[in-house]
Amino acid sequence: MNSKAVSILDSTLRDGAQGIGISFSIDDRLQILALLDNLGIAYIEAGNPASNPKELEFFKRAEALELKNSKLCAFGSTRRKGIKAEEDASLSALIEANTPVCTIFGKSSRFHVEQVLETTAAENLAMIKESCEFIKSSGKELIYDAEHFFDGFKDDSAYAIETLKAAADGGADIICLCDTNGGAFPDEVSEILARVKCEINLPVGVHFHNDGGVAVANSIEAALAGAAHIQGTFIGFGERCGNANLSAIIPNLQLKLGVSCVPDKKLRLFRQTAEELAAVSNIDLDPSMPYVGKYAFAHKAGMHANGVLKASESFEHIQPRLVGNARWFPASEISGKAVILEKIKTIFPDISISAKEADEILAHVKAQEQSGYQFEGADASFELLVRRKMKPFLSFFELIHYNIHTVYAGGFTLSGATVKLKVNGAEELMAAEGNGPVNALDTAIRKGLEVFYPVLSTVKLIDYKVRVLDATDATASRVRVLITSSDGQNTFTTVGVSEDVVAASWKAIEDSIIYLLLRDKYDSKSEETL
Amino acid sequence: MNSKAVSILDSTLRDGAQGIGISFSIDDRLQILALLDNLGIAYIEAGNPASNPKELEFFKRAEALELKNSKLCAFGSTRRKGIKAEEDASLSALIEANTPVCTIFGKSSRFHVEQVLETTAAENLAMIKESCEFIKSSGKELIYDAEHFFDGFKDDSAYAIETLKAAADGGADIICLCDTNGGAFPDEVSEILARVKCEINLPVGVHFHNDGGVAVANSIEAALAGAAHIQGTFIGFGERCGNANLSAIIPNLQLKLGVSCVPDKKLRLFRQTAEELAAVSNIDLDPSMPYVGKYAFAHKAGMHANGVLKASESFEHIQPRLVGNARWFPASEISGKAVILEKIKTIFPDISISAKEADEILAHVKAQEQSGYQFEGADASFELLVRRKMKPFLSFFELIHYNIHTVYAGGFTLSGATVKLKVNGAEELMAAEGNGPVNALDTAIRKGLEVFYPVLSTVKLIDYKVRVLDATDATASRVRVLITSSDGQNTFTTVGVSEDVVAASWKAIEDSIIYLLLRDKYDSKSEETL
Repeated sequence: MNSKAVSILDSTLRDGAQGIGISFSIDDRLQILALLDNLGIAYIEAGNPASNPKELEFFKRAEALELKNSKLCAFGSTRRKGIKAEEDASLSALIEANTPVCTIFGKSSRFHVEQVLETTAAENLAMIKESCEFIKSSGKELIYDAEHFFDGFKDDSAYAIETLKAAADGGADIICLCDTNGGAFPDEVSEILARVKCEINLPVGVHFHNDGGVAVANSIEAALAGAAHIQGTFIGFGERCGNANLSAIIPNLQLKLGVSCVPDKKLRLFRQTAEELAAVSNIDLDPSMPYVGKYAFAHKAGMHANGVLKASESFEHIQPRLVGNARWFPASEISGKAVILEKIKTIFPDISISAKEADEILAHVKAQEQSGYQFEGADASFELLVRRKMKPFLSFFELIHYNIHTVYAGGFTLSGATVKLKVNGAEELMAAEGNGPVNALDTAIRKGLEVFYPVLSTVKLIDYKVRVLDATDATASRVRVLITSSDGQNTFTTVGVSEDVVAASWKAIEDSIIYLLLRDKYDSKSEETL
Repeated sequence: MNSKAVSILDSTLRDGAQGIGISFSIDDRLQILALLDNLGIAYIEAGNPASNPKELEFFKRAEALELKNSKLCAFGSTRRKGIKAEEDASLSALIEANTPVCTIFGKSSRFHVEQVLETTAAENLAMIKESCEFIKSSGKELIYDAEHFFDGFKDDSAYAIETLKAAADGGADIICLCDTNGGAFPDEVSEILARVKCEINLPVGVHFHNDGGVAVANSIEAALAGAAHIQGTFIGFGERCGNANLSAIIPNLQLKLGVSCVPDKKLRLFRQTAEELAAVSNIDLDPSMPYVGKYAFAHKAGMHANGVLKASESFEHIQPRLVGNARWFPASEISGKAVILEKIKTIFPDISISAKEADEILAHVKAQEQSGYQFEGADASFELLVRRKMKPFLSFFELIHYNIHTVYAGGFTLSGATVKLKVNGAEELMAAEGNGPVNALDTAIRKGLEVFYPVLSTVKLIDYKVRVLDATDATASRVRVLITSSDGQNTFTTVGVSEDVVAASWKAIEDSIIYLLLRDKYDSKSEETL
């Protein structure tokens, strides 16, 4: 293990915001700043103050946050061709943003200088040097981003190195080599970095995009080849295929290769921070994301589950708790008793369970799975199944009947549901319209039950999926409905199976309501009273 | 550029099926087999015949498919400890699966042999050699998967190499080194591979998992270090963080590093196949996925869009059409026409289409996609869209109204639909019961229309999938329904979108009936009479 360190720059708020479907409000951005600061990320690149008049307003509010661990960076480009640095409004806006650090990017590739920028190689060098000098004259720390560096180096390595020297001469503190189109491979990264380090006597950084699917590997190989600074975005946001994913790079470097990136104790916040950052951004965190995804340590195959219980390193490259994640055995057809017992333990940590009870639950799970249930994506329904067997609880309500109509006529579609439930001993009739039969049913039930259980108003269904299970008979086949609900903080998924899609939906809706009501009770009372 | 080649093994149907949320029916698996075969993937690992009695049924149906390009592999483990290979029911099941190729896995790590398998180092070597001999005695091609190889090699390299030699002595044709817990890095992969190649005089393969986020890079570095065989899954399905993503590995190797993996012309099918595979699996393809994702060549930043128009390599590491993808400017109208024209040509090979017609179709497709349609998995609906624009056809029927009721009472669920259609100028009332509202509607329409169009009796719906499009409002959101129909020989998929799940289903059902009726007409008459 080396005992070296690299500084990390997160660009979620700048390069990450270029990702399709990503659109941050100022409040979102301030929340993300606080999340990243709390992780101990060295630099947070927060935006381009010249891109938009509202940006200076953002930088003012960001300054007021008083970050505890991170330094805020404003991002911009070298001066335009043919003018003086002090005449360039964008460069002045960078200084006005009043951040301790600025990042400016310039071109390293002679081809791009001539074809895209449409200027001369010499003017480009002057643009880089003078822009760096201008920023440094304000006393700020300066990171110079060498755009298209790897392609430029492969085209004309002497010129590419000259551009870096121009930035160094201008006073840049860190020189960062950017793989702007995401096409570099790990072996060439190591080789080119070694050659740059012979020429540049400053900390050298790297900035990768994931177009080839190797941005994480490129970053790691760069660190091993002597890079002192790594740029990326915490959960990989970015244009096209995204930027290098820091939530994978940092644990790889820090836990496995002895390269320090953030304070050790901060790694345990990674899983939670990744979910929070995704939630602020209104996207679903990829559950398969290395280290931080919900499935990153999930073992579905029975043999793997068995192996991991005997020797965790069989199928776990690190201990999941090191990044705040947890081992997870989704209940599934392929898995066995050991997995079921492990899951029961996570639900009832203090319970001792007899072999007979475990066998009964396992047999019940298998029978349910045989009839089309799938619990691996539906932990809330699995928990209810176990609770019903282990600790029977009072039912909160009981279905008497429902009657749903869906009509199309005169170009109009309408659906309505009437539902009778027994609640607290009395029969209650509820009715609602909805977009389709299932939505009408769901709306009627929730509207009616909210009177008795106000906590239901905090929960929304956020996803609804239907699959046909037996493909021989399609719309007449057995269907599996998965419903994901959220109260804004936690999400949970329930499952229902039936030949009738409405009946299957009803089961999943019923489970989602009971799960929430049970959880609400546990929060307020001891388990014994249930 | 080298002029070498590697053989590719896709394990979507075996290792991929271990992914959480992945659950393939037999029909799904046969569809995926056909997709992968069409790509020219050398080996398709399709399942473990010993895991489940239904598996042999699957292998029988798969055999009947008669793959054009790929060899089907059955997967299993070495014999159990302490018995003879011929006594092992799992090994016998492998042979019964009647595939041209088998893969068997065994342990390479002394630690795992002793701690997890609980046997001796010597018995493990015998298990490997004898199992290989047993499979080879049946005349099949044999791939030996060395589980936990990289960890095993780091622990005790001499023993790890002995396990490979046991497989080679047993007659294995390919030796594949597996990074079972996904913890290896590119530089160590290259080094270990070089050492293995000094000891083993057989083609050596690699199999990576993505726990460190570097599975693609590991596979590429392995190929550069002399691996002759690469295993993965086409869009990265697999347990935990997934398997090495072949849709990134293959273009990286073939387009950039001169290593041939599939016939060159097949690369252009990659984007389309990735979407189709995701659709069959009822998951959304990650739009940021390298090469094949919808956003892989999307340029949101104005400066990038400008750069890419001046010099595409500024922000594109390859030409998107090489993998059947397209440059996309999300805010602009520039994208897609070439793709649409390409698709229209496949439907009407002889037609010449004016720029204006192409523009109109493109605009219509964009508007439909804006409202939630997705034609990638629904070629029959796309074909109808184009036909409606290019060669208007008579409608076969017209919906006047439908009225559906779904009732639950006294433990019974029942659904019934009354539908009025205009057929041949007359209004016809049709009614049927069904399992749920959509099935009742579908049954009523087909029962009623079969009197007029007997060919409808040959077609069945074989799959029905529902997805919510806007995750903020679940059962009240816009839903997309995909319906797959089959006449026993051909399958085709249609799509409908609406806020109402029944209305969306109606649109998909209507398209599926019209598509069939049109195809029936084309078969019996010349196109001119339509």
